[in-house]
Amino acid sequence: MALIDSSRAGQTAADVLGFGAGIPVVRGLDEALALGPTALLIGIAPVGGRLPDAWREIVRQAIARGLDVWSGLHTFLGDDEEFATLARQHGTAIVDLRRPPPDLPVASGRVREVGATVVLSVGSDCNIGKMTAQLQIRDALAALGARVRFVATGQTGILVEGWGIAVDAVVADFIAGAAERLVLEAAADADIVLVEGQGSILHPGYSGVTYGLMHGALPHAFLLCTQPSRRTIRNNDWVAIPPLAELVRLHEAAAAPLRAAPVIALALNTFDLAEDVAEREIALAASSTGLPATDPVRYDPAPLADAIHRFHLARPRR
Amino acid sequence: MALIDSSRAGQTAADVLGFGAGIPVVRGLDEALALGPTALLIGIAPVGGRLPDAWREIVRQAIARGLDVWSGLHTFLGDDEEFATLARQHGTAIVDLRRPPPDLPVASGRVREVGATVVLSVGSDCNIGKMTAQLQIRDALAALGARVRFVATGQTGILVEGWGIAVDAVVADFIAGAAERLVLEAAADADIVLVEGQGSILHPGYSGVTYGLMHGALPHAFLLCTQPSRRTIRNNDWVAIPPLAELVRLHEAAAAPLRAAPVIALALNTFDLAEDVAEREIALAASSTGLPATDPVRYDPAPLADAIHRFHLARPRR
Repeated sequence: MALIDSSRAGQTAADVLGFGAGIPVVRGLDEALALGPTALLIGIAPVGGRLPDAWREIVRQAIARGLDVWSGLHTFLGDDEEFATLARQHGTAIVDLRRPPPDLPVASGRVREVGATVVLSVGSDCNIGKMTAQLQIRDALAALGARVRFVATGQTGILVEGWGIAVDAVVADFIAGAAERLVLEAAADADIVLVEGQGSILHPGYSGVTYGLMHGALPHAFLLCTQPSRRTIRNNDWVAIPPLAELVRLHEAAAAPLRAAPVIALALNTFDLAEDVAEREIALAASSTGLPATDPVRYDPAPLADAIHRFHLARPRR
Repeated sequence: MALIDSSRAGQTAADVLGFGAGIPVVRGLDEALALGPTALLIGIAPVGGRLPDAWREIVRQAIARGLDVWSGLHTFLGDDEEFATLARQHGTAIVDLRRPPPDLPVASGRVREVGATVVLSVGSDCNIGKMTAQLQIRDALAALGARVRFVATGQTGILVEGWGIAVDAVVADFIAGAAERLVLEAAADADIVLVEGQGSILHPGYSGVTYGLMHGALPHAFLLCTQPSRRTIRNNDWVAIPPLAELVRLHEAAAAPLRAAPVIALALNTFDLAEDVAEREIALAASSTGLPATDPVRYDPAPLADAIHRFHLARPRR
């Protein structure tokens, strides 16, 4: 309905993001309210996922004006006494997208029992397109007639899909258990399960989530997502991102002791590259690894969907 | 003071565990109360760390008889309304050892700034001696005159040391951040920091904790702990434990993208092996890896402490 960003007011989502032509950017809540929303969504995630103090006022106002509040923060707004009391008074709901379900299991490899082909997206860094690539591929696979399901493992994926668990918000011993539960559920009515990856095995802050997700989902194959222009981990420039062929090797080595899984396709995020540079990077990625590669947002995701579909069809059945 | 275990009542801790000659095993709480305890400790951890229903009664009784309750479970007993109310009525304390501190950071490699040498214990599986090996080595290093500190990262280590964070109980995004905070604190007054490892990079349920701890603590070197008689992951016999040399390689490869760290010593848990078999396994471990190896509980931990001390002295200073 509208984006709130005082520094870009007057533009549209398309001006700022490249899509969303009909969505205005407004200065603040009052302007947004004129459009008749029913909910305020806190859709960005600061490092650590806590609510900045400066945002408390807009949350208060939203609730007082009868809006539900949807939040992807680590700080659960529903547990904030002031917000909870306000929401009760105004009959609105606070939905914390990252709140984990109770009674998660410790993972024990039960996903090995499912017949579906499981593909996990992994990445050279956070915020690099692991979710978006899977969503693009999901649609392309569905168009091929495949019974395919997307598994949301983060707050944005949950918003998009209406289902999932934010595996970075569960108690650490249950990361893999959350992934196991999601894959078991998704595999019940799908032949191909596309699991949204989180973080990176290279990330100093979040690698535990990445590895737990990998060993809980136990994918049959990986989709490796990178951004050619990014040479170091974001906010951690002391961590160099290795060359693609080495990244492929690192992921396959980390998975192997539990379940051997090859990287079968590369999703490149080229949003910040000129057309000719993007095409050159994609060709280079393909030639340096021998794998199908494309930017599945900028271009047709078919090469990646085809690679996954072929892998699925060729996989030995139990 | 006493162990409660109805199936072994009448024996001593030494009969059951091999140490603790003066500690009786008693049938239940009533018998234990006669000895004048001030606290009930829940010292075992079922998979998933939840309180079995059958234990509620003994917790209730303990509080009602004026005992504090110390618990290492994932389920926080202090958050249980019945227990909390009872404890208030009886003026006793409930201490949940795994409760994480608020406001943990997302790790960002700040431990790279400390001067101390950081050694993390890692293992082929859970429950294999990663904590005990470090405690034995800590004492041996202290005897050598080193300024050494043990970093507790699990509930038992916290009980032993009176300080630490159970990194398996923090929200997943903060595993590495918890490790970072602990190492920074320990390094403030130590030259050698021995970090208690958790889980295993091979463990289907807990590997996320292991990797997060590894990338948050960013050790300079690893102490690799194994149990020669264990060929597969406990409760997950579908995961084979690779040969020692391969385990060494796997850990060094997982660390390398963030900070290169060699495995410099091997701690073998031989409690279930006859003397001659234990000695043969230790010799085999040393010869197959070229590393110092011993069982630091059964034998003198000096070979491992010496290896760490030599590594510390030889390490280039910033």
